[in-house]
Amino acid sequence: MGPIITFLSDFGLSDEWVGVCKGVMKGIAPHAEIIDISHKVPNFNVKKGALLFASAVPFMPKGVHLAVVDPGVGTKRRAIIILTKRGDYLIGPDNGLLIPAAQRLGGIKRVVEITNERYMHKPICPSFHGRDIFAPVAAHLAAGKDMDEFGPEIDINDLVQTPWSKARISGEEIICEVIYVDKFGTLRLNVTLHELMKCGIRLKNQILVKWNEKNVILPLLRTFGEVKAGELLLLVDSSDHLCIAVNQGSAAVKLGLKVGSKITLIRERDPLSN
Amino acid sequence: MGPIITFLSDFGLSDEWVGVCKGVMKGIAPHAEIIDISHKVPNFNVKKGALLFASAVPFMPKGVHLAVVDPGVGTKRRAIIILTKRGDYLIGPDNGLLIPAAQRLGGIKRVVEITNERYMHKPICPSFHGRDIFAPVAAHLAAGKDMDEFGPEIDINDLVQTPWSKARISGEEIICEVIYVDKFGTLRLNVTLHELMKCGIRLKNQILVKWNEKNVILPLLRTFGEVKAGELLLLVDSSDHLCIAVNQGSAAVKLGLKVGSKITLIRERDPLSN
Amino acid sequence: MGPIITFLSDFGLSDEWVGVCKGVMKGIAPHAEIIDISHKVPNFNVKKGALLFASAVPFMPKGVHLAVVDPGVGTKRRAIIILTKRGDYLIGPDNGLLIPAAQRLGGIKRVVEITNERYMHKPICPSFHGRDIFAPVAAHLAAGKDMDEFGPEIDINDLVQTPWSKARISGEEIICEVIYVDKFGTLRLNVTLHELMKCGIRLKNQILVKWNEKNVILPLLRTFGEVKAGELLLLVDSSDHLCIAVNQGSAAVKLGLKVGSKITLIRERDPLSN
Repeated sequence: MGPIITFLSDFGLSDEWVGVCKGVMKGIAPHAEIIDISHKVPNFNVKKGALLFASAVPFMPKGVHLAVVDPGVGTKRRAIIILTKRGDYLIGPDNGLLIPAAQRLGGIKRVVEITNERYMHKPICPSFHGRDIFAPVAAHLAAGKDMDEFGPEIDINDLVQTPWSKARISGEEIICEVIYVDKFGTLRLNVTLHELMKCGIRLKNQILVKWNEKNVILPLLRTFGEVKAGELLLLVDSSDHLCIAVNQGSAAVKLGLKVGSKITLIRERDPLSN
Repeated sequence: MGPIITFLSDFGLSDEWVGVCKGVMKGIAPHAEIIDISHKVPNFNVKKGALLFASAVPFMPKGVHLAVVDPGVGTKRRAIIILTKRGDYLIGPDNGLLIPAAQRLGGIKRVVEITNERYMHKPICPSFHGRDIFAPVAAHLAAGKDMDEFGPEIDINDLVQTPWSKARISGEEIICEVIYVDKFGTLRLNVTLHELMKCGIRLKNQILVKWNEKNVILPLLRTFGEVKAGELLLLVDSSDHLCIAVNQGSAAVKLGLKVGSKITLIRERDPLSN
Repeated sequence: MGPIITFLSDFGLSDEWVGVCKGVMKGIAPHAEIIDISHKVPNFNVKKGALLFASAVPFMPKGVHLAVVDPGVGTKRRAIIILTKRGDYLIGPDNGLLIPAAQRLGGIKRVVEITNERYMHKPICPSFHGRDIFAPVAAHLAAGKDMDEFGPEIDINDLVQTPWSKARISGEEIICEVIYVDKFGTLRLNVTLHELMKCGIRLKNQILVKWNEKNVILPLLRTFGEVKAGELLLLVDSSDHLCIAVNQGSAAVKLGLKVGSKITLIRERDPLSN
């Protein structure tokens, strides 16, 4: 068994780009095994990329995690390696993409800026740092190179931060937003299980969900199957985020909500149970 | 070379779900090699999933075959391991998804219900048994655990059966339906080569194909290239099913047929040959 | 580390076909590692397939490179193995698909026609030579079989050639066409860096780009970030082809150009620099 490299990008699967990065990595680290997280992050969408990356890495073996969603490719934005407290390496652009994943892996221990051209693929194509900088560096790390070989240590506090706002708790209200819509149309909110618990919200509570001029009261349940097909519910998903969902259907379609939609949650006074 | 795990789901490739399941499996069975069958089964479509899975597994090395298309996730539907007569393990929900594949691998030898929580990922997310139950069990099997470690043996006759009807042979007619449309628009019917032969239908026969008020007479040929580009034909596909196809075109578009469309086939009296 | 097989096709990722080919290959060459280039080449589009394949293979480890985009499957078109001067094996149909890739790998050293049925999967399905001929042959080559085992040597000059025209240089004009549009909407032209240099075009030159009745003057730059978001530029992409692009946008949408569009390029007399 070789070292693990996981890989997320917005390259898509139609072009040859993902394959080319893998070819470059296998040329440098022949024993590495590459696990795709997703390559269908919408073009340049750092927010969605950061969310997917953070949702995935806690379930990956300890290793090297490469993420490339990089609207600033070819500009002066920095390329970085983050060493997490769990002992993983995260490689990507310094645009916030790696931060939520680092937090899910115990937090950031050290950061290095990638400047040593010795470990890059030459000539460096200014529109494809994935192939010429990030993939080779990930492979050299997987092959055992020390992170300090790649460039100088930089200050954690100088990094570009998480690309979405936190939910705000205001009195009895949680003011939040939709940060992701999955392929089933389930709406993920920027509210974690931890934050729900701090607000005293518990399983089987009824929650008033308000947006624009509309509102609906939904139960917080464990699983889709606790409501009938086509009915709405709230649940905490596999990445610990609160979601608005429809059993065997699309909450996005049913409610007309999308990424960025603002939502207010208030616990109803008369819970069904607890 | 490690043990093989093949993997089919309706998770899609946009979200992180497939990658997460692979991460979990590689954490448990580092030497396993994972081959994707397809993750683009339409959401909750057990029928299409079962068909793809059955078409693929006969060409896979003997091993562990994981399939997750699971509209009943989080309900009381059972999770099962099937040992086939060829010696493969099939893992998935007990909703008929695994049955056609088991039949293509010689039939079912034994079945175990997955109940032993020791081999599950905790806490079990009620909406993601793929990650927390099926993937870990597949990996533990690949790593050499005995199937009886995972739960009690159950009766083969209690399993939910194949999710589509069989073609009916009535006098000289075969009454059948479209069970799959591939990306080229080729229509796969629930009629196998074996059933055609039982009806005395042979290569180069002309077949009357009837649906609704319409009909067309098509030759049964070996390959697309035996008709001109744009013309219709019948052929037996790589999974031994009868198909209606258009050379370099879409039979689905040309005939207006789709999954579930009912079709009657009758051999013409005056075959071109044989 | 096992031998590398890279794999491109027009099979798509919805059906089981890619997985089946991989299963067949792993059954024959258990130690081989398979890298996907792309399976989303548009159906039967040899031109796009050839371009993607040629763009990818120079970045792959030396090995076996399998490409299947095969509108002539089941007809008399030949199946071939090309040995490149770099030492790679290219496997696929003799329809021009492999030629540009061979040129990127130093040129063609020898070619063999695949005729020996011993290394095919029987029965051979006439509509799925990917599974029954190309994948098994690729796997046997990866496992160490000599290329002469598979059939007779054939004349390099008899091969079907590259499936697109070369740019024509006429006086001061380059007459060319769009040969690919990537997922970002960047337009790739059949003009290489080498051809630009022969015409005396250099970085930061202004180029008159003409098509139909329209024209626009664009700078040839190193990278997207040298123009503002939404603005047009010319650049040489990671496969050494000239491209028309928009920083963080789609040149295809902005200019209404697509694959096959004819374009004339003329260097402006008064370059900004050089």
